[in-house]
Amino acid sequence: MDEQTASWREQGKPPMLFKRFAFGSYAQTRAFLDALAALSEETGQHPQNINFGTTYVNITLDAADGATLGEAERAFAARVDALAGSSG
Amino acid sequence: MDEQTASWREQGKPPMLFKRFAFGSYAQTRAFLDALAALSEETGQHPQNINFGTTYVNITLDAADGATLGEAERAFAARVDALAGSSG
Repeated sequence: MDEQTASWREQGKPPMLFKRFAFGSYAQTRAFLDALAALSEETGQHPQNINFGTTYVNITLDAADGATLGEAERAFAARVDALAGSSG
Repeated sequence: MDEQTASWREQGKPPMLFKRFAFGSYAQTRAFLDALAALSEETGQHPQNINFGTTYVNITLDAADGATLGEAERAFAARVDALAGSSG
């Protein structure tokens, strides 16, 4: 597992990266979701699935080529981690 | 099943309302998600879970009192339907 995405769980065939983010309030969840949408807009990369309630967001990233998780996916995951840090 | 929410599936114990919305593009999905966030902001009602990819949004509404789906949940579901209509 790449150090950059150590906190993400690699699962499934083809492999995907999964992580759950928990927040103290809906306002923080909302700020994170808005920042995540902006990141997708900026990079053109979209999580395979985003699943959220008022105080949690589950994110699944799939392999762009449908087979192997590469540098692009890991870099996106690291940027999502950074967003979560700043929505705290 | 209430006519207002006929297109929503009632499932689970306690009962929840579930519906899948499909869109032709990420831009339409994004417009719908933003409108849905504004509706939650306006009403103070939040879906129990929202689960989306680039061209679909799955919404689960739970009973506010944790037991019975009432008029407030059905009215919210009907307003969500109206949003989907306008994001087309």
